[in-house]
Amino acid sequence: MTSRIEFQKDPEKYRHWRVEYDGDVATLFMDVDEDGGLFEGYQLKLNSYDLSVDIELADVVQRMRFEHPEVRAVVMRSGKDNVFCAGANIRMLGGAEHAHKVNFCKFTNETRNTFEAAGAESGQPYICAVKGACAGGGYELALACDYIMLTDDGTSSVALPEVPLLAVLPGTGGLTRITDKRKMRRDLADIFCSTEEGVRGPKALAWRLVDEVVPNAKFDQVVAERATEFAAKSARAKPAVGIKLKPLQRKIDDNGSLSYSCVEVDINRSAGLASITISGPDQPAPNSIEALHSEGADNWMLRCARELDDALLQLRFNELEIGVLTFKTAGDGELVAAHEKLLLDNSDGWLAQEILLYWKRVLKRVDLTSRSLVALVEPGSCFVGTLAELLFAVDRSYMAMDEFEGDNRPIATIQLTAANFGLYPMSNDLTRLQTRFLGTPEAVDAAEETKGQMLEAEAADTLGLVTFAYDDIDWEDEIRVFLEERTSFSPDSLTGMESNLRFPGPETMETRIFGRLTAWQNWIFQRPNAVGEKGALQRYGTGVRGEYDKRRV
Amino acid sequence: MTSRIEFQKDPEKYRHWRVEYDGDVATLFMDVDEDGGLFEGYQLKLNSYDLSVDIELADVVQRMRFEHPEVRAVVMRSGKDNVFCAGANIRMLGGAEHAHKVNFCKFTNETRNTFEAAGAESGQPYICAVKGACAGGGYELALACDYIMLTDDGTSSVALPEVPLLAVLPGTGGLTRITDKRKMRRDLADIFCSTEEGVRGPKALAWRLVDEVVPNAKFDQVVAERATEFAAKSARAKPAVGIKLKPLQRKIDDNGSLSYSCVEVDINRSAGLASITISGPDQPAPNSIEALHSEGADNWMLRCARELDDALLQLRFNELEIGVLTFKTAGDGELVAAHEKLLLDNSDGWLAQEILLYWKRVLKRVDLTSRSLVALVEPGSCFVGTLAELLFAVDRSYMAMDEFEGDNRPIATIQLTAANFGLYPMSNDLTRLQTRFLGTPEAVDAAEETKGQMLEAEAADTLGLVTFAYDDIDWEDEIRVFLEERTSFSPDSLTGMESNLRFPGPETMETRIFGRLTAWQNWIFQRPNAVGEKGALQRYGTGVRGEYDKRRV
Repeated sequence: MTSRIEFQKDPEKYRHWRVEYDGDVATLFMDVDEDGGLFEGYQLKLNSYDLSVDIELADVVQRMRFEHPEVRAVVMRSGKDNVFCAGANIRMLGGAEHAHKVNFCKFTNETRNTFEAAGAESGQPYICAVKGACAGGGYELALACDYIMLTDDGTSSVALPEVPLLAVLPGTGGLTRITDKRKMRRDLADIFCSTEEGVRGPKALAWRLVDEVVPNAKFDQVVAERATEFAAKSARAKPAVGIKLKPLQRKIDDNGSLSYSCVEVDINRSAGLASITISGPDQPAPNSIEALHSEGADNWMLRCARELDDALLQLRFNELEIGVLTFKTAGDGELVAAHEKLLLDNSDGWLAQEILLYWKRVLKRVDLTSRSLVALVEPGSCFVGTLAELLFAVDRSYMAMDEFEGDNRPIATIQLTAANFGLYPMSNDLTRLQTRFLGTPEAVDAAEETKGQMLEAEAADTLGLVTFAYDDIDWEDEIRVFLEERTSFSPDSLTGMESNLRFPGPETMETRIFGRLTAWQNWIFQRPNAVGEKGALQRYGTGVRGEYDKRRV
Repeated sequence: MTSRIEFQKDPEKYRHWRVEYDGDVATLFMDVDEDGGLFEGYQLKLNSYDLSVDIELADVVQRMRFEHPEVRAVVMRSGKDNVFCAGANIRMLGGAEHAHKVNFCKFTNETRNTFEAAGAESGQPYICAVKGACAGGGYELALACDYIMLTDDGTSSVALPEVPLLAVLPGTGGLTRITDKRKMRRDLADIFCSTEEGVRGPKALAWRLVDEVVPNAKFDQVVAERATEFAAKSARAKPAVGIKLKPLQRKIDDNGSLSYSCVEVDINRSAGLASITISGPDQPAPNSIEALHSEGADNWMLRCARELDDALLQLRFNELEIGVLTFKTAGDGELVAAHEKLLLDNSDGWLAQEILLYWKRVLKRVDLTSRSLVALVEPGSCFVGTLAELLFAVDRSYMAMDEFEGDNRPIATIQLTAANFGLYPMSNDLTRLQTRFLGTPEAVDAAEETKGQMLEAEAADTLGLVTFAYDDIDWEDEIRVFLEERTSFSPDSLTGMESNLRFPGPETMETRIFGRLTAWQNWIFQRPNAVGEKGALQRYGTGVRGEYDKRRV
């Protein structure tokens, strides 16, 4: 990496987005700074985007949920005159390495999901007000909104021109959302996706590409009306005063290891490993919802989610050669349970609910992290409830059995809580325990009966909650051998294997986007017809079309 | 292509499989001829396979259904002493071009599905009797069987060693069937798929990898008992006398165009197009089930399915640069309906049922063909019932409207029958019309009300059954422009786009195998860690391990 990619943003310094707050409606303007790209070699013309634009968007969406809980509808629109958004920047895609392209698409997909979920879960629905060209990734932004409005000015259009123009796919959910969310007829979708110039006006409505087409003269007025209507229907409790998401405390040492207030990431570069240790709370839980509000961003549950989220992104983008992540915890499990319980008991209030929803997103980010994931349950650890969920997100887990010689920390236990039985569905809409026990649903019931109990290794193993339980004699060797073996395998085959094994059973739009669509896009991102010297991505903008190997695969 | 790959086989000349028929139980021995591979440069040691082995297997399964309807259980086992099957031949995979690897995997997947379906649909369940090493594609053969038996001799094992050994995936359904069919716990699946030597005996049973572990001394006896039990439970009507699947009539001209008795494939090599014309029957339908049996393989419905199936495989494997397939029909629609009706009215009998099930498989083969698919409904055509199903399998359809000047064929019509409403589910378990109208299920009902009516273009268009209706003036130009445009696009992006748009909505194990697993495998098949000079596939057998770029994607 030339320089570290940073995901923490100061809203005062946004370069690509601005937000106007007006009572319960927020208007989010996309107004990309051409010179504000993350790398050299391209300008972000026509509201096209690179990762820097999406990092800001993710920050906006997150802050809106915590800092502006009064918002009950969000209008997304362009800050430029003649274009809504031209999609991902092609020169950036043409110049980027494969790994960056893949990471970039995954992060933008996660960001699309986060504002799509804001409507469904947080009562902050997004209305997309399209004026000007809305193409490729631009239309994919719109597709993730709850409601798409298109002005009927004779030129404004929506389009997915990736296939004819760039020899790649509308890979940020586009192909999946037109069929699965908007339920466009598949032959019309075929036409739409092969029509470079897109579709305008009433035809866009008839083809289900937008929800409403509005005469241009009345556009702003009708958009405002719809925003008011959506805000009125929002299920969000009111009135609500936000909390400030202040900057994270984070230190990075020369080796790249990261240290936050309750998350430590220890990088072992030569071994290709990172160890992530989460510390439980060192203070009692706030004793009321008012106390929770006073704590704000200092609250352990919120702080821990934010720090873990940032750590995962740091590892994904800035540590490509770290193939295995081990998760550990340390602390008092009863305190973890108490902090979690306050949120569970108050989840009808917006702040407790938002913190739990944030954990849901962070845990999904874990599921979708293309590294081998391992949990180590050691003496003194606190895998309880929300933190125990990590045990079921990882590819395998090891639990220490009985006492360890010379180790005076408490014996290793895990504890399930209500949080493990419905609060945190995966992308496949099952809980991690339901996913784990797809073939033996009765095992989920057996696990549920232990709620609140401290389970030692033998019990956890019998219940199928951990992969291995080892005593003092075997512990270190077994883990060392496993880690050496794992890091000797091909990273690509591990990515493919884990992507399949982590999501068995039913599928949803989300799993289809990350599993099927992304896999095809990644394949195409390797093909000479797209990325070769004569490929369409490389030749874009030169006036010469891509030359294609005509063999069908 | 150096030489044409041939899918028609004479059972007298099998080199890799033999079948012993004994009453209602058939035993299928895999006994691969090391020197019988399709290409030069490798030997098929240890019962490893290449496409030639799978073509024979597909032929065996097909013949068993038609020629041996008395069979009510099939035992699959090895004809060699110490090995069940070592999986796909690695040297073949290392040497094959990307397109061949992908086509090979798709065909083997389709073959796995065909014997998996034989148990569920035709009362011919497969029992896999594993003695010796059963690894990789060998275990994937077993996974597609209804029941897996493993001998407990201290050495026999099942394994998916692709990730540790070859840096690729168990991509012929392996990763999906262990989680979705056998419902193995995902962390145990992670261990299993990273353990080169596999799992033996009771542990294989405990991990749900096999259905029964049998002491070695009793193995043959218990296998025979299970076969008798499965045969007794089979829902297949008895007694049943088979029909002979005699060789297809087929001519190939110098240009590669194919001519069968009722299917013509006209290759336009410079344009990258193939036109497939299906002729309706020229004789009345057999007037009884006895007459159907007398016709045997001459029956139009069966003949047409066999010829279309062969044509699709010829195009897939031998015509890689033909990017667009157009489907046409010609003939008397009422005769098509009459032939189909005889089968529908007699589908409680095995032969009518098998012909309809064969059409189900052929139509799925159409869905999974990675070429742009177009239907042209011209004057004189007979898109009725089963043939009309092609209209809903293709990516888009064009229908001729009104009379065409100087054309004295009957005006173009289409006709739906009962066959379009449940008989031919796609891989996603929906009918093609349900898939087409995912967003407007009432449109399926409206279509159903027209059953038996001859619909002209305007009516078909209004009902949403065709993509375009053009009159004489526009017809040729519109189609020409479309075909020119389509063949100018990147074949890879079209493959990715069509793979996504053809299967909207719900997923099944089948769609997950072809959509998710295959896409990841194809991606890995492009990656240097697998196929590069230092990649694992290239280095296999040299004694030197693959060298991997450690960056995770």
